[in-house]
Amino acid sequence: MDDVMTDGVGRFIELYQQEFNEDLSALRTPGNTLQNTVPPDRLEKVLQFPHQKGFFKDLPIKEGCREVIQQLQERYEIYVATAAMEFELCFTDKFDWLKQHLPFIPWTHIVFCGDKSIIGTEYLIDDAERNLKTFTGTPLVFTAPHNAHLQEYTRFNNWQDVADYFLK
Amino acid sequence: MDDVMTDGVGRFIELYQQEFNEDLSALRTPGNTLQNTVPPDRLEKVLQFPHQKGFFKDLPIKEGCREVIQQLQERYEIYVATAAMEFELCFTDKFDWLKQHLPFIPWTHIVFCGDKSIIGTEYLIDDAERNLKTFTGTPLVFTAPHNAHLQEYTRFNNWQDVADYFLK
Repeated sequence: MDDVMTDGVGRFIELYQQEFNEDLSALRTPGNTLQNTVPPDRLEKVLQFPHQKGFFKDLPIKEGCREVIQQLQERYEIYVATAAMEFELCFTDKFDWLKQHLPFIPWTHIVFCGDKSIIGTEYLIDDAERNLKTFTGTPLVFTAPHNAHLQEYTRFNNWQDVADYFLK
Repeated sequence: MDDVMTDGVGRFIELYQQEFNEDLSALRTPGNTLQNTVPPDRLEKVLQFPHQKGFFKDLPIKEGCREVIQQLQERYEIYVATAAMEFELCFTDKFDWLKQHLPFIPWTHIVFCGDKSIIGTEYLIDDAERNLKTFTGTPLVFTAPHNAHLQEYTRFNNWQDVADYFLK
């Protein structure tokens, strides 16, 4: 979900502004991560943002996400697998987000997990190297600033790229 | 989790007693299910029990479950995958239950899912035919009244049987 379907990076920038009254837009620069962008004395606080209730609520959906997933569903079995266990206050937010934005994904096809190595699908579209490198099917990277260094995976820069790969 | 690690059948009997002031212990008889045990005019109400908040809270853990899983963890990578998406009010109850009873299972190895056909592990211990029959690894049935008719899977009647299968 985060940084594939939603703008998780944007939420960090927004909460950073609220907390420190400073701009963190540099987090959008390819190659940047929280670790190399946030001053060390603020990092612990910022890493706690997703553990707060509401972090995952009302996140904007990425352009084309809804439309492309609807098209993919006509030809593929689509699951949404999201790392939720690390942030236990997010369960309801994430579930509600999916009901609101992707109501055509049935509950049978939603997975809240920890380690995604357990996911036995044929493809995985993900932003996080830790998920891509343990996946047993075909891993596909969805571009986010923190994965700009990854060279070894087919890369999607946006949802149109996803449509082109799977539907053409 | 339910009817493998916990006594889900017992919770139905308990709530039935509260709701209708009648005994539903017959639900423990091998071969019985809610559908063939509960009077038809009460079935809809009873099927709603797991959708109530608290259904999954404080469920007793089955004898030997904790000890055997701890032993299994020394030789296997253990995931807990539970059908949670159908009952969205259960997320916190299930997560808290696992923290309380099986604190040695890390969050990385907890999966809340819908359809378990997505689970890519080598083995699945489950009570529900719908999960066993779509599983791509080795399905193993954990005895519950509602699965007494299943003949095609290796059967565990209790957690000692699980230990004997995997540890001997």
